[in-house]
Amino acid sequence: MSAVPLTLVNGQPASQLAALDRGVSYGDGVFRTLRVEAGVPRWWDAQIARLTHDAQHLRLVCPSPEIWKSDFDTLQVAESGVLRLTLTRGEGPRGYPFPAFPQPTRIVAFWPGAQTDSLQSITVRLCDLRLARQPVLAGIKHLNRLENVLARAEWHEADIREGILCDAREQVISGVMSNLFIWHDGVLKTPLLDQCGVAGEARAQLLERAQRAGYEVRVCQISLQDLFDAQELMLTNSLALLWRVARLQTREWLTPVISAHLWECLHA
Amino acid sequence: MSAVPLTLVNGQPASQLAALDRGVSYGDGVFRTLRVEAGVPRWWDAQIARLTHDAQHLRLVCPSPEIWKSDFDTLQVAESGVLRLTLTRGEGPRGYPFPAFPQPTRIVAFWPGAQTDSLQSITVRLCDLRLARQPVLAGIKHLNRLENVLARAEWHEADIREGILCDAREQVISGVMSNLFIWHDGVLKTPLLDQCGVAGEARAQLLERAQRAGYEVRVCQISLQDLFDAQELMLTNSLALLWRVARLQTREWLTPVISAHLWECLHA
Repeated sequence: MSAVPLTLVNGQPASQLAALDRGVSYGDGVFRTLRVEAGVPRWWDAQIARLTHDAQHLRLVCPSPEIWKSDFDTLQVAESGVLRLTLTRGEGPRGYPFPAFPQPTRIVAFWPGAQTDSLQSITVRLCDLRLARQPVLAGIKHLNRLENVLARAEWHEADIREGILCDAREQVISGVMSNLFIWHDGVLKTPLLDQCGVAGEARAQLLERAQRAGYEVRVCQISLQDLFDAQELMLTNSLALLWRVARLQTREWLTPVISAHLWECLHA
Repeated sequence: MSAVPLTLVNGQPASQLAALDRGVSYGDGVFRTLRVEAGVPRWWDAQIARLTHDAQHLRLVCPSPEIWKSDFDTLQVAESGVLRLTLTRGEGPRGYPFPAFPQPTRIVAFWPGAQTDSLQSITVRLCDLRLARQPVLAGIKHLNRLENVLARAEWHEADIREGILCDAREQVISGVMSNLFIWHDGVLKTPLLDQCGVAGEARAQLLERAQRAGYEVRVCQISLQDLFDAQELMLTNSLALLWRVARLQTREWLTPVISAHLWECLHA
């Protein structure tokens, strides 16, 4: 993946933004990461809707879908890669109060490089860090991501692809950069995200598509024991789409059960 | 207070930083705010020590005190105002992992304008938002400040100067932009910050100076009931130094008890 992304700030080619932007000062903003395939961003409308929802939740005025589309068109992307859309509350006077006349900042960045196009089996670990429970921010993909940063810093092994995060009450929530699904006795389950975690678009897509394909789907509390008891463990995000977990600590899942079919559902 | 601060990025006069700096992408960094009096930043050594401590806690390499001092000298500040020192993990490849060769970004900003030089009596409110409990980040003045931003957005009344924050277990933690002290039956108490909150330098100074002045001082759990039962309520931060709370909801404290003396201790 290239180290030199294409970037726009407020629609203009630029690699910089105001040093006192509230995005830096307070992490006051939201973002989304999209998979781009031969110049086409996957799930564009849904991702923009999700970005808009999250922005509104923080009482941040989100630019219209047309403005985001125009930004993306400006990049003139024809190849595959990763697109990140970021919206901050922009600059303002010093201090926490919202600016009286907010001028949000949008950052659009594209990293060329194709993502995998097949279902991968990966090794994951359990993270030591426990996610804090904060219902006001739960589900939102905001810019306060120090928990993810610190959790990701827990391991260096190249063969470990992802870490599983629990919250302070030992409920399983997600991966560091993915959402989690388990397959257990004929039911596809994914954790409730009403206390912490990020509601990713790939998670929403899988919930919907699996249900449409006839699977019984449940959003519920999941314990660590449920993980180890599951017949299959999967992780979703917008870039990989779906990973199948082959190993978690000493527990191994040797044979795929439904992951190959769910990959087809999601990839379609 | 001027709307146009003086800013340096990595020691150079600049008003911009990289749009993909991890400070923006993840709030991956720390900061401190200092009161500057006629060109002299108050508690400089202690503030730099605190910034360094917080950075190390996030495994961020902090520039030496000499580098921060050199940055401040570059500003050639002779007047009073507010100084903010920010350190981020800088740019890196996309994603949560620490960059292999981190190049932290330091942002030094100065807003001219004198702070108050007398003890003020203020009206405060109780915030609805409850701080999440996250021992890994408790006490650290990091850039993930959405809770403070949202708590501060709860009120618009100009006569309400500060909001009081409790955590998810209804323990009183701090103000939105200050630390809290209560005076009760001859003991000066301030909340434990082992689950959330920011350990401000003014708090540390008051703890030390009050003890030296002969007060009995205690860092402990404080309930909402303790607040209303207290004989005096005070808030500290590096800019105001000390506020005396005159009113919280319907509870009023008409006569100062020890706040005037503590102001003298802190201002000295």
